[in-house]
Amino acid sequence: MQLAEYIDSKRQEHLNELLEFLSIPSVSTKSEHKADIQRAAEWVANALQRAGMQRVEIVPTSGHPVVFAEWTGAPGKPTILLYGHYDVQPAEPLEQWTSPPFQGTIRNGNLYGRGTADDKGQVHIHLKALEALMKHEGRLPVNVKVMIEGEEEVGSTNLWNFVEQFRDRLQADALVVSDTSMLAKGVPSVTYGLRGLNYYQIEITGPAQDLHSGVFGGPAPNPLRILCELFAKLHDKNNRVAIPGFYRDVAPLSPKERKALNALPWNKKEFLKTVGAKGPGYVPEQGYSIIEQLWCRPTLELNGIWGGYTGEGAKTVIPSKAWAKFSTRLVPNQDPEKIARLVEKHIRKLLPKTVTCKFQVLSMGKPWVAPFDHPFFQAAQRALERGFGKKAVFIREGGSIPFVTQMYDTFRVPCILIGFGLPDENAHAPDEHLNLENYFGGIKSIAFFYQELGQLKANGSKRK
Amino acid sequence: MQLAEYIDSKRQEHLNELLEFLSIPSVSTKSEHKADIQRAAEWVANALQRAGMQRVEIVPTSGHPVVFAEWTGAPGKPTILLYGHYDVQPAEPLEQWTSPPFQGTIRNGNLYGRGTADDKGQVHIHLKALEALMKHEGRLPVNVKVMIEGEEEVGSTNLWNFVEQFRDRLQADALVVSDTSMLAKGVPSVTYGLRGLNYYQIEITGPAQDLHSGVFGGPAPNPLRILCELFAKLHDKNNRVAIPGFYRDVAPLSPKERKALNALPWNKKEFLKTVGAKGPGYVPEQGYSIIEQLWCRPTLELNGIWGGYTGEGAKTVIPSKAWAKFSTRLVPNQDPEKIARLVEKHIRKLLPKTVTCKFQVLSMGKPWVAPFDHPFFQAAQRALERGFGKKAVFIREGGSIPFVTQMYDTFRVPCILIGFGLPDENAHAPDEHLNLENYFGGIKSIAFFYQELGQLKANGSKRK
Repeated sequence: MQLAEYIDSKRQEHLNELLEFLSIPSVSTKSEHKADIQRAAEWVANALQRAGMQRVEIVPTSGHPVVFAEWTGAPGKPTILLYGHYDVQPAEPLEQWTSPPFQGTIRNGNLYGRGTADDKGQVHIHLKALEALMKHEGRLPVNVKVMIEGEEEVGSTNLWNFVEQFRDRLQADALVVSDTSMLAKGVPSVTYGLRGLNYYQIEITGPAQDLHSGVFGGPAPNPLRILCELFAKLHDKNNRVAIPGFYRDVAPLSPKERKALNALPWNKKEFLKTVGAKGPGYVPEQGYSIIEQLWCRPTLELNGIWGGYTGEGAKTVIPSKAWAKFSTRLVPNQDPEKIARLVEKHIRKLLPKTVTCKFQVLSMGKPWVAPFDHPFFQAAQRALERGFGKKAVFIREGGSIPFVTQMYDTFRVPCILIGFGLPDENAHAPDEHLNLENYFGGIKSIAFFYQELGQLKANGSKRK
Repeated sequence: MQLAEYIDSKRQEHLNELLEFLSIPSVSTKSEHKADIQRAAEWVANALQRAGMQRVEIVPTSGHPVVFAEWTGAPGKPTILLYGHYDVQPAEPLEQWTSPPFQGTIRNGNLYGRGTADDKGQVHIHLKALEALMKHEGRLPVNVKVMIEGEEEVGSTNLWNFVEQFRDRLQADALVVSDTSMLAKGVPSVTYGLRGLNYYQIEITGPAQDLHSGVFGGPAPNPLRILCELFAKLHDKNNRVAIPGFYRDVAPLSPKERKALNALPWNKKEFLKTVGAKGPGYVPEQGYSIIEQLWCRPTLELNGIWGGYTGEGAKTVIPSKAWAKFSTRLVPNQDPEKIARLVEKHIRKLLPKTVTCKFQVLSMGKPWVAPFDHPFFQAAQRALERGFGKKAVFIREGGSIPFVTQMYDTFRVPCILIGFGLPDENAHAPDEHLNLENYFGGIKSIAFFYQELGQLKANGSKRK
């Protein structure tokens, strides 16, 4: 039996195991899920053990633990460091899910549930590819180190301490990450660029207490209105971020890359359908295509606003406080710390003297872009074409994995992002799902990828 | 024993009874409090019975019931219709209360609790004044009809049907309402003007579902940002409402009234201290004093905004929807229906084509102003000066009692608003309270007021 055939014979077994993994509500942003996070880490450790990995450890951090394992039985072959995360986004709003978020459910060839696409389903692809190679071939074709963290959805706060601590054991010739999407259904993709992410929260205080809007309305400063007026000033009419210096360090796209990106089989119609907004359906930035906006342009987005009375019926209140959560997506070569300073400075400048403002940076993460002509990238492309029987492409993504840049800065090795999600699979939203054919094709592709890498030397050159 | 002495002897008894009334959480805006509303209505009915009123009824409506009672044993004397409400605002945010909102607590000569000032405490002043007259004099000096409703805090939705139904029985020579404030501590006041109130809610929908802010951020229309940009356009730089036609029907203040209002012993410093905002502490409207802004100028205020992720930590979402509750305070001669149309039309015009908007008018209420030279108003002034031993003044208020205008439009009789609250008593906010001296002085003043009215004919002229 060929390896591909062997993997296909295990479909039901793989799926059942993934359903178990998905059932653990490992929401990293909420402290009430601390025990679930621990359970998820243990689940991953057990799966690595079953796959035949060695030295499996659950490494505690000041936050959520990192699961680490290795197999180094292929001297002279490349060493791969695999990264993924077992934590997930909150499932709220719960009432918008068609089936329970932590009970994987198959509908129309898709597996629905929180973490299916981001990132438990993709982590599981790797676990099963390693297990298949080990069980079918008796060994791995390369050396593999595995690091699965539990804080990706909260900015990988404590991962960096772990990396410093495990620096020697993490040494590898390439980093492999599956936490991104394919360009579209049937288009296997390798990602070579990500946006960075800074996440902020502000609390604006006007009156010392809530006030009656009749008795005080007019002269009383209303923090809700002040919050609105603030955020209305953070974009100009051309949909650009109106913070002085915000674009100063943005690296221009080369004409060659621009041409390649715009030639991709990316479906604007599909994008607009997924967004599902009225009228033109999107907000253009003059001089840039939608794909350039999504992948190569920085943003400032409100992620949450609240304040005043939000219950049933009417309450005639001028509240004391108003809040907003918002984020900036960053592109090469914007520096997160510099951007955070510019954002805070400008917001403080715009706010009227009647209010005070508590400004918090909840997390920071650099943007990243890689040269995709390295032999490891080419090996990934070949493996995907074998696994899916379709042409594979090189893409960028609008999302952020802050860790990738930090890893690149530290180890200076190629970072290869092979994603098996799809852009319309509702990562971070209700009804998150993963296409089952991509899940099953992914397991084969990753197994092939390690076989392809096994044909190369550690530096990527061909073995004689 | 004089009447005043008799009333003073009952202080503790009156207070204990008020504490019982306050303990019923009769929050009209929340359906879960329906049973409490019913209990509060029954409590009022029992108190009227004990006061010696006749034909006490709890009249059901499509919403919350109205309590009605009358005493008509003074033929030839004026007939007074007393109005108040037994419903209260929600107590949220609960954590900002020093003592439990539905457990009246005395601190520093004030009684704290939801409804102390607005309006249970003031209703109770009337109940006890009637009871004292009845028990001390054996009768009332005038004819009295009492109507205490349960929907004032939700726009008196069903009261008008009740008024239509009871129209004949409600006939009176004057309407008396205690649901307003004194100008300041030690300044007993009669209110002759109120702002009207329209309350609105909008729901803005952009994307068909929540989206990942990395994968979609940039071209995806963000309803939170669109909401902010909308409300930023609803005021101009001079703090005026930027809705075409909004000020068209505003009646100018006469120089005489303007002079009188600005000569009142109103304390700007006290106002700024209560608001408690930084810097200048308030937002001016050019050409108007703060007191004119508060009482004689219309407003548009946000009362609540929400959308996206508002929990602990970070969630990188572009939500599908954003919401706002907001209201317009209206002044003579603005027409609520016309204003609602102007507001909706302008909002729909300002919103981009990428979003849809559900626009709701939750309630509407007219502004009101009365001539205060009528003998009944003069009687009220004299009674207050006797009850408090201080000079009483004529004032307007920024708050709204939509019912007053409707009653005036229907019965065309003087409406006399005698308030015993204070502007800094946190009506509609945490730590609502009522000054106990105003409560006790109020009971005496109202009893004196009915005695003064008993000296007049039904049309207000002096009895020979």
